[in-house]
Amino acid sequence: MSSPESVVATPSRIRVVDADVHHNVRAKEDLFPYLSRLERDRLLEYGLPRNTGLHQANGGWRGARADTFDAGEDVDPRSNFPMFQRKLLDDCGIDLAILQVELTPSLVALADVDYSAALIRAINDWSLEHWVAKDPRYRLSLTVPMHDPVLAVKEIERLGDHPSVVAVYVVCGSTRLYGKREFDPVYAACVDHGLSLAVHFSNEGFGMNPPPTAAGFPSYYAETYLIRPQFYQAHLSSFLFEGTFEKFPQLKVIFCESGFGWVPAFRWRADAAWKELRLQTPWVKRLPSEYIDEHLRFTTQPFEESEPPTAVDQVIAWMNGARTLLYSSDFPHWDFDPPEAVPARLGPQVRRQILADNALLSYPKLVPLAGTVRA
Amino acid sequence: MSSPESVVATPSRIRVVDADVHHNVRAKEDLFPYLSRLERDRLLEYGLPRNTGLHQANGGWRGARADTFDAGEDVDPRSNFPMFQRKLLDDCGIDLAILQVELTPSLVALADVDYSAALIRAINDWSLEHWVAKDPRYRLSLTVPMHDPVLAVKEIERLGDHPSVVAVYVVCGSTRLYGKREFDPVYAACVDHGLSLAVHFSNEGFGMNPPPTAAGFPSYYAETYLIRPQFYQAHLSSFLFEGTFEKFPQLKVIFCESGFGWVPAFRWRADAAWKELRLQTPWVKRLPSEYIDEHLRFTTQPFEESEPPTAVDQVIAWMNGARTLLYSSDFPHWDFDPPEAVPARLGPQVRRQILADNALLSYPKLVPLAGTVRA
Repeated sequence: MSSPESVVATPSRIRVVDADVHHNVRAKEDLFPYLSRLERDRLLEYGLPRNTGLHQANGGWRGARADTFDAGEDVDPRSNFPMFQRKLLDDCGIDLAILQVELTPSLVALADVDYSAALIRAINDWSLEHWVAKDPRYRLSLTVPMHDPVLAVKEIERLGDHPSVVAVYVVCGSTRLYGKREFDPVYAACVDHGLSLAVHFSNEGFGMNPPPTAAGFPSYYAETYLIRPQFYQAHLSSFLFEGTFEKFPQLKVIFCESGFGWVPAFRWRADAAWKELRLQTPWVKRLPSEYIDEHLRFTTQPFEESEPPTAVDQVIAWMNGARTLLYSSDFPHWDFDPPEAVPARLGPQVRRQILADNALLSYPKLVPLAGTVRA
Repeated sequence: MSSPESVVATPSRIRVVDADVHHNVRAKEDLFPYLSRLERDRLLEYGLPRNTGLHQANGGWRGARADTFDAGEDVDPRSNFPMFQRKLLDDCGIDLAILQVELTPSLVALADVDYSAALIRAINDWSLEHWVAKDPRYRLSLTVPMHDPVLAVKEIERLGDHPSVVAVYVVCGSTRLYGKREFDPVYAACVDHGLSLAVHFSNEGFGMNPPPTAAGFPSYYAETYLIRPQFYQAHLSSFLFEGTFEKFPQLKVIFCESGFGWVPAFRWRADAAWKELRLQTPWVKRLPSEYIDEHLRFTTQPFEESEPPTAVDQVIAWMNGARTLLYSSDFPHWDFDPPEAVPARLGPQVRRQILADNALLSYPKLVPLAGTVRA
């Protein structure tokens, strides 16, 4: 197991930070060393839970880029460490990559929260030992059993001070919106350990979670692609009007793979709602757009394809994207974006901010400075 | 009961059409003349179902404008016919107003679909007799029991040829997304009777319907305001990728009170999803944005308040709003918009299109011409 004393080497010059990369175990046996005998027997007998099979054919080649099956058709590219080093880190010039494990959605949708938490502990330990410890360019976004906030806090307390752990990783599907006060201890733990909260779609409608829309389940993968921004909008509405950012003024929330074209209209509507209805939520002191500017960050992949193509530049201006956007590749998924997806026409300064500087400001522990990391 | 033979007088010059007005019964007794004895006894004993009480204090003064309680504190302004004539039609210069009854959300969330359909028949008959027949400026959007498509078709067949019925009225909360093929007979009936499909939020999470978001229920009214566009986005995704508009090339769908700031980014994302994934849904022949231009219309209230204020003009351009937006007041609700909410800076031509011309093109029966209305 990795220990908090691991040395975190940092490249001397950070030009590209990738805020959303998905690795995975190759097989259940990878987790055996990190489990008790009882948990191991259970995993051996029943196998790992699987991310949903509801929508078959999710974007081609089992969701991964066709050119990433270096180890053969039967090996999940997400488990191929040398391939990641070559095709992501080296070929794309990624200086720091934040790992968010592929298996999280199904692990956090298990009804048995204790077994869920055991598998989560195992996959975090395995990630630190077999990925983070083996290349100084990796950081870990720590999976937590968010469906049981008490156990989520325990996991943050267990590993939150590891110098390579930079965020807490949660997925959008949930029985409860994340602004609800029972999650406050999780955010207190995030702030206390210098971690941002990374939010990613995936497990909506899995397990105990409600259907993904107010009218049930879609039929096709293209529909799931279109409804994803909704999951984030619901949680953001909840954060804003429950007063989460008043309670946790240091908390940064990273919306991963949410798209960003929706953000300006959401900001306008949120400000209008606040102006009209703030008497009902007097603890919300400021305009929602101010909280969003200060607390929310949005990863870029898949970069919006607007019509006309330059319309997206206007969208970026309206959402203060020069400060609020973080580059991400989503490697090794089929709809991967290289750093060049952030268009040169935005200018070198804005491009540098989106590719690296904004991330350095959004994860307090991303580049540890002397005295800032408790180890 | 009104009969299809009612004369439909039409103002000689149509300058303002209001696509979303909410009237209501004053009390359950209003519906007694339209029910069988068994249904009447049941209504007498149990009372009308109520729209949700989940979010108390929904925007002030019981959801209605404070100045509309002309008949006293105890009388729902939505039931005050003379007040509507004066404060909406006369004072705002509305030439045609499309009525969408306030009670629909709770009526269509009843598990007993036969009783639900009986109440719906009654409220449609009552609306035609007590509102539409009494002022030539009213048209009716026909409530149907969409949760049982067979019964929905029956109601369209019963009243769809009434010359003042211009649309079929459904609400977003549903156990199934509206692109699913079991709803196709409803759309066939719409097209057959020259009716558009009007979709309005309201009953998400009521009765049998799933929670309003993929993470459950929000706490505050301001949140419900922010998540509303999601309900429409889910149904639109479903319409597009189920191929509804290929099957019904004449169908027009009116999204009422959905906001419209979200539309450009949704179009871009839908086109991107189609380009990448259309092999999985080969029956979707055209770019989603083309279907949206041709088949979707969006009502204006509450008019988007952008920052900077003129940003909304750019949004309108990107969504072809000069053709796709329809003015609505949402009278008598608290967040009512008068026709002046459509800003003069858009120019007289675009303003005229949004205030009236687009509606005349979007509801085939809005202004009946000789030979076009089957009576």
